[in-house]
Amino acid sequence: MKAVVIHAARDLRVEEREPETPGPGQVEVAIEAGGICGSDLHYYNHGGFGTVRIREPMILGHEIAGTIKAVGAGVSKFTVGNRVAISPSRPCNACDYCLQGQQNHCLNMRFYGSAMPMPHIQGAFRQRLVVENWQCHEVKSGISINEAAFAEPFAVTLHAVARAGSLLGKRILVTGCGPIGALTIIAARVHGAREIVATDVMDAVLKKAEAIGADRTINVASEPERLAGYAANKGTFDVHFEASGNERAIRSGLDVLKPRGVLVQLGLGGDVSIPQNTVVAKEIEVRGTFRFHEEFGLAVDLINRRAVDLKPLLTGCYGLDEVQTAFELAGDRSRSMKVQLSF
Amino acid sequence: MKAVVIHAARDLRVEEREPETPGPGQVEVAIEAGGICGSDLHYYNHGGFGTVRIREPMILGHEIAGTIKAVGAGVSKFTVGNRVAISPSRPCNACDYCLQGQQNHCLNMRFYGSAMPMPHIQGAFRQRLVVENWQCHEVKSGISINEAAFAEPFAVTLHAVARAGSLLGKRILVTGCGPIGALTIIAARVHGAREIVATDVMDAVLKKAEAIGADRTINVASEPERLAGYAANKGTFDVHFEASGNERAIRSGLDVLKPRGVLVQLGLGGDVSIPQNTVVAKEIEVRGTFRFHEEFGLAVDLINRRAVDLKPLLTGCYGLDEVQTAFELAGDRSRSMKVQLSF
Amino acid sequence: MKAVVIHAARDLRVEEREPETPGPGQVEVAIEAGGICGSDLHYYNHGGFGTVRIREPMILGHEIAGTIKAVGAGVSKFTVGNRVAISPSRPCNACDYCLQGQQNHCLNMRFYGSAMPMPHIQGAFRQRLVVENWQCHEVKSGISINEAAFAEPFAVTLHAVARAGSLLGKRILVTGCGPIGALTIIAARVHGAREIVATDVMDAVLKKAEAIGADRTINVASEPERLAGYAANKGTFDVHFEASGNERAIRSGLDVLKPRGVLVQLGLGGDVSIPQNTVVAKEIEVRGTFRFHEEFGLAVDLINRRAVDLKPLLTGCYGLDEVQTAFELAGDRSRSMKVQLSF
Amino acid sequence: MKAVVIHAARDLRVEEREPETPGPGQVEVAIEAGGICGSDLHYYNHGGFGTVRIREPMILGHEIAGTIKAVGAGVSKFTVGNRVAISPSRPCNACDYCLQGQQNHCLNMRFYGSAMPMPHIQGAFRQRLVVENWQCHEVKSGISINEAAFAEPFAVTLHAVARAGSLLGKRILVTGCGPIGALTIIAARVHGAREIVATDVMDAVLKKAEAIGADRTINVASEPERLAGYAANKGTFDVHFEASGNERAIRSGLDVLKPRGVLVQLGLGGDVSIPQNTVVAKEIEVRGTFRFHEEFGLAVDLINRRAVDLKPLLTGCYGLDEVQTAFELAGDRSRSMKVQLSF
Repeated sequence: MKAVVIHAARDLRVEEREPETPGPGQVEVAIEAGGICGSDLHYYNHGGFGTVRIREPMILGHEIAGTIKAVGAGVSKFTVGNRVAISPSRPCNACDYCLQGQQNHCLNMRFYGSAMPMPHIQGAFRQRLVVENWQCHEVKSGISINEAAFAEPFAVTLHAVARAGSLLGKRILVTGCGPIGALTIIAARVHGAREIVATDVMDAVLKKAEAIGADRTINVASEPERLAGYAANKGTFDVHFEASGNERAIRSGLDVLKPRGVLVQLGLGGDVSIPQNTVVAKEIEVRGTFRFHEEFGLAVDLINRRAVDLKPLLTGCYGLDEVQTAFELAGDRSRSMKVQLSF
Repeated sequence: MKAVVIHAARDLRVEEREPETPGPGQVEVAIEAGGICGSDLHYYNHGGFGTVRIREPMILGHEIAGTIKAVGAGVSKFTVGNRVAISPSRPCNACDYCLQGQQNHCLNMRFYGSAMPMPHIQGAFRQRLVVENWQCHEVKSGISINEAAFAEPFAVTLHAVARAGSLLGKRILVTGCGPIGALTIIAARVHGAREIVATDVMDAVLKKAEAIGADRTINVASEPERLAGYAANKGTFDVHFEASGNERAIRSGLDVLKPRGVLVQLGLGGDVSIPQNTVVAKEIEVRGTFRFHEEFGLAVDLINRRAVDLKPLLTGCYGLDEVQTAFELAGDRSRSMKVQLSF
Repeated sequence: MKAVVIHAARDLRVEEREPETPGPGQVEVAIEAGGICGSDLHYYNHGGFGTVRIREPMILGHEIAGTIKAVGAGVSKFTVGNRVAISPSRPCNACDYCLQGQQNHCLNMRFYGSAMPMPHIQGAFRQRLVVENWQCHEVKSGISINEAAFAEPFAVTLHAVARAGSLLGKRILVTGCGPIGALTIIAARVHGAREIVATDVMDAVLKKAEAIGADRTINVASEPERLAGYAANKGTFDVHFEASGNERAIRSGLDVLKPRGVLVQLGLGGDVSIPQNTVVAKEIEVRGTFRFHEEFGLAVDLINRRAVDLKPLLTGCYGLDEVQTAFELAGDRSRSMKVQLSF
Repeated sequence: MKAVVIHAARDLRVEEREPETPGPGQVEVAIEAGGICGSDLHYYNHGGFGTVRIREPMILGHEIAGTIKAVGAGVSKFTVGNRVAISPSRPCNACDYCLQGQQNHCLNMRFYGSAMPMPHIQGAFRQRLVVENWQCHEVKSGISINEAAFAEPFAVTLHAVARAGSLLGKRILVTGCGPIGALTIIAARVHGAREIVATDVMDAVLKKAEAIGADRTINVASEPERLAGYAANKGTFDVHFEASGNERAIRSGLDVLKPRGVLVQLGLGGDVSIPQNTVVAKEIEVRGTFRFHEEFGLAVDLINRRAVDLKPLLTGCYGLDEVQTAFELAGDRSRSMKVQLSF
């Protein structure tokens, strides 16, 4: 069985790994599509992020879907041949946070492809993967496996939308229209956002944002004054989804949010400088959002029901012989939105 | 009638002003106590804060209480001789924010002693003040006028507690134990906080914090490791009231807050650098809190009912001939908590 | 000018009224469509509901749209010829509830066509109506005036959805698929409900419910056991919108709601008998919902953007010479969903 | 070992039972105080309530405290001699509700002394009880074991207060001042209720309510008009805690609650008739509250810290030879508040 293994920054290899056999309650899945995520790119380009560093070889990947090839004892929900999206989130369901329904903060989380703990949690970019049956969500016929592999990043943005509370009648700002920003636009739209304004610094990206549902797009590099206009009367937007990780995007959001507006922070970055006086005087709420829990099933459900169309976000799908090409393309946002691997 | 007028940084004068006559719905109050607030000190020491600067002579002061001396037409709620605490908050009750119940974000707010608009909103450190009757809240007999003058800063902290939501069963961190931090401890205690840990960099201040209700105090200058211990298992505190405006206090709070913990930002300062990854990965909520609205009446009610005892926070009360002394003392937190003026 | 006037139960007349002239800030509208509401039917069939009775002749109607014919002084937002939906809600914006943003609970509300106060508030089923400019919301070209006249009942259901909080990932039950139930299905769908099950006792009505977006429909008269199946494991639904006013519908909802599920009560009726033990043991939340406020603008916006299609709910539109026919048809739910008048 | 066993309505016996030995993680407790609860009285007087009936002999009791006599393997938190309050709530921590933090809705709950499942869950009125160590909460020295045995009913009322949300600045109505109503007054007071009005039909009970913290009490049997006065301007109270189970109490609460007020239903009863129109027109929220989860630890903490004084609620404590007397007294609310047994 082949797997995509990161050894150090820019040292990515396709290697052989021993396949596993499904135990009770488990299934074996032939992975058929795997999306390259921002964190995969961080490992690939920089060997990690912040204090999280690659300290031993680690299989990358956590945005995956495939077909069930074998079923362990006691699994009645699935049969061989079922196509499934697989949640990479494996909380312990026993720690204090799990027992409060906050599984995304599990003290013993084993999320695929994470170098946070040591030994690292090996990822899912491999030809075969043995998973718990509750990680699997069946994909309806007519839905491509590539669409199914969007379930994970889409779940991230559904959780972000959940963190914002009801969007009924709300005016929304999305800053940063990469894969996460774009999926946030779709997630916010399907949950009733009244108006969505999206910003980025690249026209090509903004064009895509408009195609998938933004009401208005602004290139804040070439025409920042168009956003500034929203600052009148203490601000216009009820919710700002910040998906760029860029300090200027955050600061501009604080200016155009209404008093008591909510800034949902998706983008990861290092330290950012915030004007404390604005947060205080406008009583802004800044809320972090991290991964997802029950939203994975919701993501698959929305894809299955064609309530959303995520296909336009797929730039291309590359075989294991083109892994390097795929990662380079995924890292170039002028040319790509979401790049997937096939196995 | 004498008034305390700021002309520029460190140029504070006691000057004559023409008294006014109460119109319909108004009352004239002999101001008897006025607390010196952090913003008064900013005007006195620096001529303003941020972009807000003294551009014309302005009477300072907004923490005030006194006795009614005359009553305008149509006022039945009060009579001459009533002792009242006076809310310095005068929203328009007609703008979009007022009609959403967010009077503290009124587009036309006339809050006493504010150099934000031009002409400035003149303040209340004067011997006589004509106010709307709805600004007045009667003070029960047995309550000193100095206690009554605490209603305004106490209302600020009650609003901060309201912003945090229910404190039932919650573990609370208060950073910065000046007047606002200290009043926050009292406000949180009376609303059911389960445990309150308070930090500062001065032992004298922490001693006071303990006396008024903190369960535990930590001098983060001399023993920072005691706070760091609360970071285990992703954090301990449910709510962090940040009343120092200090960047290190904010950052330390992010470390010891639980996932989904709430950081209520009271302290004003300039730009602060925030570790974005912590806000995201722990899904922290940072909420600004600004002034108050209905909490002013609640503050007076709690003081009247002796549900809280604010007297220990009063450092001293000085006459108009000692204004300079009073402001110097108020600005020295090693020697003072709350300094008031008498008129 | 002709108006539709109720004198007593089943005594409905088309009478002459003197037209008015728009004052400052007002506009005169030629009413072109007016939907007959359940309360209009109550006045027509029973002379009122509960303690609210017709005590003097009253013009009916509050679901209205038309074309501006004259514009008063100081109105710049509209010009003659603009087509507008008109909000029948006229809160005072000065009472305690208005100043808390709860305009639908205004102590001095003047809602068109209400016999609650004496003198009654005259309604809007008339050829010309003078209204405040802020009651008007422009209707985009391409939208029929009949669709525009749905803004009011649609706003009622948007408010009901707002009362339920975020519907992200939620399973929804709607009981009673008359006009309000049907509009609730549409309002919940556009705000992201995951699954909508609708019940009624008439197959024709359920067919319509399915056509406009219900995932599943159940005739609780002919196959009650299909709903009962949702009671397994303490219940299935997160939110129950009760739009029938029927006691059995409420009680069945309590059985199939999950613990901490929310029952939003739209339907008006008299006393209903509730199993207290179920409310307690499952910690159900029963929330009333009444009229709307900011949702009127949202309703017009969703109609204008074609985010929703309300046309399928229109049964027919009748002239003033067929008022009786229109009211009879509107009262027969086996034959009609929403009946409108033209003027 | 002796135990208090109910066989049928009014057939209560003290019987011998075999003591158990603590396994790993368990402790053996000598039960020293056990409060008689309303549900114990239902079993005693009526053989059950609603559809829940005694179908086999069952040990009663779940409000208990005692001293640890033996400690199982792996228990380091407690030693022999520790005095503890014991939570009777034993959720499975594995079902869907537990994994959402809703342990009080556990599908497999084993709550002491419940005839709901078959076989019944045996209760805790016995001389020795083997419990999981996580059920135990240490009681501070200086706190009597009788006070400790109040932890369970107090936790019920703390959960009710938690269901109401923040009480900051809120006006509260408590109807029914038996043990649960009285404890609700204390729980609401310690969490910052601004004003508490309590009603009952017995003067003796109301006297007690006033002594423990109600600001005002009303005998609704002898002077109902005093409560009716609170209905002006659509109502006065923000939250109504209904602890009588009485239909008239619920209906009167709906009249005096403000629009959007919250009625927290604690009292259990059968069907109650509710004026649907009031719930709708005032947008009332009726919220059931059931048992507790994390509030048990909070209850012990508040008792330990002397933040509350529950002693005044204890009517008396009776030995096993006076069980009958104790149950008769407990059932007579004219003579008793809370009656406990000693073992």
